[in-house]
Amino acid sequence: MTLKDKAAIVGIGTTQFYRRGQSGDRTHLELMVEAARNAADDAGLSLHDIDGFSYYQGGFDSGLLASALGIEDLKYSVLMTGGGGGSQGSIINAAQAVNSGLADVVLCVKALKSGGPAGRRIGRMGAQLRTQRNFDGVDQDFTIPFGLMSPGQGFALMARQHMHKFGTTVRQFGEVAVATRMHASRNPAALYRDPITLEDHENSRMIADPLRLLDYCLETDGGTALIITSAERAKDLKQKPVKITGAAMGGPGRFGQGIFWHQMPDEYFQQSSHHTVAERLYAMAGMGPADIDVAQMYDHFTPQVIAQIEDYGFCARGEGGPFVEDGGIRFDTGRLPLNTHGGNLSEVYLLGLTHTIEGVRQMRGTSTSQVDGAETCLVTSGPGILPTSALILTN
Amino acid sequence: MTLKDKAAIVGIGTTQFYRRGQSGDRTHLELMVEAARNAADDAGLSLHDIDGFSYYQGGFDSGLLASALGIEDLKYSVLMTGGGGGSQGSIINAAQAVNSGLADVVLCVKALKSGGPAGRRIGRMGAQLRTQRNFDGVDQDFTIPFGLMSPGQGFALMARQHMHKFGTTVRQFGEVAVATRMHASRNPAALYRDPITLEDHENSRMIADPLRLLDYCLETDGGTALIITSAERAKDLKQKPVKITGAAMGGPGRFGQGIFWHQMPDEYFQQSSHHTVAERLYAMAGMGPADIDVAQMYDHFTPQVIAQIEDYGFCARGEGGPFVEDGGIRFDTGRLPLNTHGGNLSEVYLLGLTHTIEGVRQMRGTSTSQVDGAETCLVTSGPGILPTSALILTN
Repeated sequence: MTLKDKAAIVGIGTTQFYRRGQSGDRTHLELMVEAARNAADDAGLSLHDIDGFSYYQGGFDSGLLASALGIEDLKYSVLMTGGGGGSQGSIINAAQAVNSGLADVVLCVKALKSGGPAGRRIGRMGAQLRTQRNFDGVDQDFTIPFGLMSPGQGFALMARQHMHKFGTTVRQFGEVAVATRMHASRNPAALYRDPITLEDHENSRMIADPLRLLDYCLETDGGTALIITSAERAKDLKQKPVKITGAAMGGPGRFGQGIFWHQMPDEYFQQSSHHTVAERLYAMAGMGPADIDVAQMYDHFTPQVIAQIEDYGFCARGEGGPFVEDGGIRFDTGRLPLNTHGGNLSEVYLLGLTHTIEGVRQMRGTSTSQVDGAETCLVTSGPGILPTSALILTN
Repeated sequence: MTLKDKAAIVGIGTTQFYRRGQSGDRTHLELMVEAARNAADDAGLSLHDIDGFSYYQGGFDSGLLASALGIEDLKYSVLMTGGGGGSQGSIINAAQAVNSGLADVVLCVKALKSGGPAGRRIGRMGAQLRTQRNFDGVDQDFTIPFGLMSPGQGFALMARQHMHKFGTTVRQFGEVAVATRMHASRNPAALYRDPITLEDHENSRMIADPLRLLDYCLETDGGTALIITSAERAKDLKQKPVKITGAAMGGPGRFGQGIFWHQMPDEYFQQSSHHTVAERLYAMAGMGPADIDVAQMYDHFTPQVIAQIEDYGFCARGEGGPFVEDGGIRFDTGRLPLNTHGGNLSEVYLLGLTHTIEGVRQMRGTSTSQVDGAETCLVTSGPGILPTSALILTN
């Protein structure tokens, strides 16, 4: 028995998106509640119908949220770790809860808010690491003294390895930024909508060689929410249900230790950490890459999109660069329309659920860069830290 | 479809237990790994058979643990929030994962270590709260200025309400400490084994009126682990499987906000937050209180044991005090043998999984205070914070 087609996403909601520091005095809790209300409205449900929570990556007090939403009896509440890697895992946990009967209507919710403990700026983790040790510090003791402190610095090493091993180029990284910005330009909710060129990318400020400003995701504020219920109950609700047909989480056991990787085998540096998840995901769905019509892939850094395209089998290992360069991810002409909302690079960076929401829109036929006739959507989570996770959605 | 009897606990393990500050330079990770190894040995499995993690309440890096245990491909990893309230929830999540086929062999593991971020001393949270805000601070803003900062202070209010409303007495609180110390005196692993009397309890230092030193759980170091697999696979393993027959989590929506309760309805102060969980637990198991042979109830403070005895229906509301005073929880003569290992009050305080481990021992017939012919065991988690959780184990 698997989770295949047992649960469905029936509601989606977000807050307004905010550039860094522009969400003013809106609280983290307020952003969660507003997103939840919008998702419930979208589903045609009341907040009182919610009886489960699924969250990921810190900053979550289920008592506080239940109280704020007016939930009488909470029946399920769980949290994924793994940073953005846990985002689709939070959907998977919701699907498990409705499948096993622990809860009927589960809210997956995530907000990021500058300044609060739940919304500390990830790009500034280095400063925090200088004064606090993560867990037992056994990994960071080998990286911090050498100045390897921020996510971008770590992923720069992986990008460099991909260039060295496969000849991947800066222009190929650039095309990920350019194509998804083109999608963002069509999405009124996206924070960055001005089209960019490969030259803009190449001329943007170097941050952690070879990663430039336009290889980096945004750092922004906002809230996101989805409502999950059983496939059975979904039939009676307002929206056309989007089924969770494939679901997998985890990853190679030696991948990612507090996002620093001094003990990782060399070959891992060429991958995204998704390769074993991909295998199990396709197995559950009974599908392969040829069956995927559109993909929303976690894009904290452009090279990791290329590595994921390889790990999910859309091309051979090392051929992700040319795949992208040949226009493979453009929504209107590409073999694999990717991040049709603009992604973390251009729409907003809220650690992952905006990708799921865009996946739902594609399955409903309501994306601003809709892929004609799309029936399947792959949605992935942050690569490079355990556990990561992924879904195949179908309509 | 429910989780009833779908999964089983097949291995249990702990480290040595340490009084506060006596675990020396042993790390949090080392305590987790040792407990995991002991649990795998107990199950007749190798650490390499583990493909899922289930954890609760912070301090957990699945990449680091997977690396330390030598796990090649992690397939599941999740965390419960809710402090000790999440402990049985971590078993429930493991049961869900094996039931839905996401993982085959899930490790539930928890360690506490003084000084580390994962093992900060809970009783000293007040000092931390003076300098850091929890989430949005919307609850604590109404409690911290008035000096209501530690768990003991909050639970003292609940104890006082129970005394006021039902006439519950200090001697009745004392009997919880005395009876479970008697059980601890028979358990060689327990940290506090010298028998105590009701007079010892009444003469112990007042900390947060009406709570005295001997009403408080210990603060100690150590690691605990359990191995969960499907009921089917459990049949082929070394130990007699202990089935998870009932499972529920959550609680009343307005219960517990960062363990401070300024918005809770009055009647909640007389309860343990377990009453709705109890209802769903019994419903899944198809059982009632009369079917329960032995109970391991989370005992951070003695009055909360009395409130749980009421919430789980072993007596009427308000009659928990007399139930206990009449010898109701003694392992050899009581109607409801309770905390036969000595519990958080006398064996060790590791936030909850020691109760599950003792439940497994009772179902195997190997407790040092074995209840003759016990076939069902109720195991609960920390009351007073959302989500809490509970299991019914059977053999």
